[in-house]
Amino acid sequence: MALKVVKVGILGLGTVGGGTVNVIAANGQEIARRIGCDVVITRASARDLTRPRICPTDNLQLTTDPYDVINDPEIDIVLELMGGEEPAKSLIIAALEQGKHVVTANKALIACHGNELFAIAAKNKVVLAYESAIAGGIPIVKAVREGLSGNTIEWLAGIINGTGNFILTEMRDKGSDFADVLKQAQELGYAEADPEFDVEGIDAAHKLCILASLAFGIPLQFEHVYTEGISAITPVDLAYAEELGYRIKHLGIARNGNNGIEMRVHPTLIPEKQLIANVDGVMNAVVVKGNAVGPTLYYGAGAGADATASAVVADIVDICRQLDAPVDSRVAALGFIVDKLSDTKILPIESITTAYYLRLQVEDKPGVMAAITAVMAEQGISIEAVLQKEPANTQDNISVVLLTNKVQESALIAAKVQLEALDTIKAPLVRIRVETLD
Amino acid sequence: MALKVVKVGILGLGTVGGGTVNVIAANGQEIARRIGCDVVITRASARDLTRPRICPTDNLQLTTDPYDVINDPEIDIVLELMGGEEPAKSLIIAALEQGKHVVTANKALIACHGNELFAIAAKNKVVLAYESAIAGGIPIVKAVREGLSGNTIEWLAGIINGTGNFILTEMRDKGSDFADVLKQAQELGYAEADPEFDVEGIDAAHKLCILASLAFGIPLQFEHVYTEGISAITPVDLAYAEELGYRIKHLGIARNGNNGIEMRVHPTLIPEKQLIANVDGVMNAVVVKGNAVGPTLYYGAGAGADATASAVVADIVDICRQLDAPVDSRVAALGFIVDKLSDTKILPIESITTAYYLRLQVEDKPGVMAAITAVMAEQGISIEAVLQKEPANTQDNISVVLLTNKVQESALIAAKVQLEALDTIKAPLVRIRVETLD
Repeated sequence: MALKVVKVGILGLGTVGGGTVNVIAANGQEIARRIGCDVVITRASARDLTRPRICPTDNLQLTTDPYDVINDPEIDIVLELMGGEEPAKSLIIAALEQGKHVVTANKALIACHGNELFAIAAKNKVVLAYESAIAGGIPIVKAVREGLSGNTIEWLAGIINGTGNFILTEMRDKGSDFADVLKQAQELGYAEADPEFDVEGIDAAHKLCILASLAFGIPLQFEHVYTEGISAITPVDLAYAEELGYRIKHLGIARNGNNGIEMRVHPTLIPEKQLIANVDGVMNAVVVKGNAVGPTLYYGAGAGADATASAVVADIVDICRQLDAPVDSRVAALGFIVDKLSDTKILPIESITTAYYLRLQVEDKPGVMAAITAVMAEQGISIEAVLQKEPANTQDNISVVLLTNKVQESALIAAKVQLEALDTIKAPLVRIRVETLD
Repeated sequence: MALKVVKVGILGLGTVGGGTVNVIAANGQEIARRIGCDVVITRASARDLTRPRICPTDNLQLTTDPYDVINDPEIDIVLELMGGEEPAKSLIIAALEQGKHVVTANKALIACHGNELFAIAAKNKVVLAYESAIAGGIPIVKAVREGLSGNTIEWLAGIINGTGNFILTEMRDKGSDFADVLKQAQELGYAEADPEFDVEGIDAAHKLCILASLAFGIPLQFEHVYTEGISAITPVDLAYAEELGYRIKHLGIARNGNNGIEMRVHPTLIPEKQLIANVDGVMNAVVVKGNAVGPTLYYGAGAGADATASAVVADIVDICRQLDAPVDSRVAALGFIVDKLSDTKILPIESITTAYYLRLQVEDKPGVMAAITAVMAEQGISIEAVLQKEPANTQDNISVVLLTNKVQESALIAAKVQLEALDTIKAPLVRIRVETLD
């Protein structure tokens, strides 16, 4: 007996679009065993039909007009895999309003316009799915939204940008400078020609914003994510961190504390014994701490054609499994009923509390440490560990590395200003946040 | 407006049952935000109502007769958290036949009788959910069955028994013998008075059997899981493994190869650079390799009241979300349509191919290594690494440790017989399988 066919159209036939065609070709039979129907990609739109593709296109009706895909009445599911804000956003809205389910890998669009888009999907009784938007092939949306639904989520922390993690890993392994490794990453195709999006944390901030909404049941608020990149990290700091038993990772951190919710992306020292400290290269991982389950970790490829397509296809499979179900029986877009989303405030970075790694360049004079510790005491900051390094060259300054206890960021900023005003302190203080992830 | 109420009854109010009461009490409001209805546990059965409980029971109707729970017409979902084969199996069947959804944490029951129980659930158009049966709070059933549904799963490997992992971790950290650490684990409550179930791999085999069915779409076949425990592992082997860059972990491994499916639980050397090699103590982790996504890893607490309850409650939430959906729109129990399950054969252990760690006690005589290598060559086994240790005491034998390349188990067994027949080899050869997990 012929299986029921679900027809899929793709907008954008680049890396993820091509990967999706390939994955469905490779695994179509296995998918049919899972859901009892055949998933067939019938149409795809691309800007330039003459470009070489990573997938065969023989069985696809190709077009340069995305509306040919959206308006095809036979198509049940539209995949938006073109990226960017417009025309992606308008196309998604058009597809939803035609009553088609939409799967997107567009993290920027979900982070910045998800509230609006999910409302349009709900109004039209269709699904807007986005598993592939965060951490590539890792099923992290499903884990937080469904797998940990018995928990109140306390915090999560993730390596959610492979480019940044590759750069930090190489810098540590080879003692190389940021700029040199970035160049190498660009040559390997791991970093874009314009790397700002990745290395300054914007991409990670998009993903973190979505994860925070999934974890805490809050509307998407990308404008409130504090974002700091890794371009100021030096091999010296990576080596000192290691000497102290830590690794430096570019983390996205979201925490639901007593005073509000934290959303922040920044370089972070984490104890080397933590599993996530050992996630290297382009790999991604997210730790999610639930009040019942404790810490859990999810690890895998955060990018790449097939890995990202794995998540796109999982969304398609979910939609197919529930094609005949009432819309209310599907999981809410952010895992919480829309009118139950919470208005808990997002804390400004000055209000968060964390430990710090500080590196100071000081003159080799009596009384220097006394002056430093006096400033710290005045701001109520305790020092947990000190590392003092004699310079190779006696004319040079001494490096002093401090690990503080947990302190409110505003106090640390005040201490920084006071320290940098001291005569004996010679260069701007290097400051990196420290999280134990316990 | 009052929320809709979903009523839940519990069979068994021990660790997991009590934990589930506590988790729903703690997170009921958050759960209501997720699903728009109140989950209320109304009744619970326990063998002895006078026993102290880890949860309050004020709001529960307690009974010693589980049928009081099953027959309560107001109850929508029954949780079977008593464990054991009977009466658990009969009670699950009775609940399913009353048209109630059932959530169970009973891995032995699912592994040995799941095929029958899932058929009864399907016939009665209800769900039999079992996320908590594998790896406690880690949402691994959901990850394999839904999150990775775009993949053909090639293999998976997991640390899925916390007791065994605690024992191996302590043996390695302290250089202690198995028997001493087992005693310590029993005192700490990490091991049962009768530890066979955990340390001989039976518990892990139950879980592996279920994971293999979820991964490959095959019926549950517990009788075909090869099972080897950790009681023969010595601190000496843990130390040699470490010297070679490996850790020894008690793994459940399932692989869908060219000739058939492997299901095996045994101590395994894995490269220390693999993330799962660094999963220590009572924690669990599972690596799943999909053909699209590559390797992914899932880590968390594999046992404990609240962690296991986290998974039980996630199953309840899933059921509540789909209460009004047709049964066909729910995920198939093993992730594949029942009549599409595959009859791919399970390989006997002699037919699998893997690398080996071998440790031999040999006399310090010329020609010994030549004799060993001749046997290996005859069986077509290449040697990848050799470690030769002079004894502390000159009268003692020399320890020779070999790492082989991949070879069929039957050839290794033949080589073992020949080696043990040599005059110069003084003790039974120690043999531990090696997996790179690439």
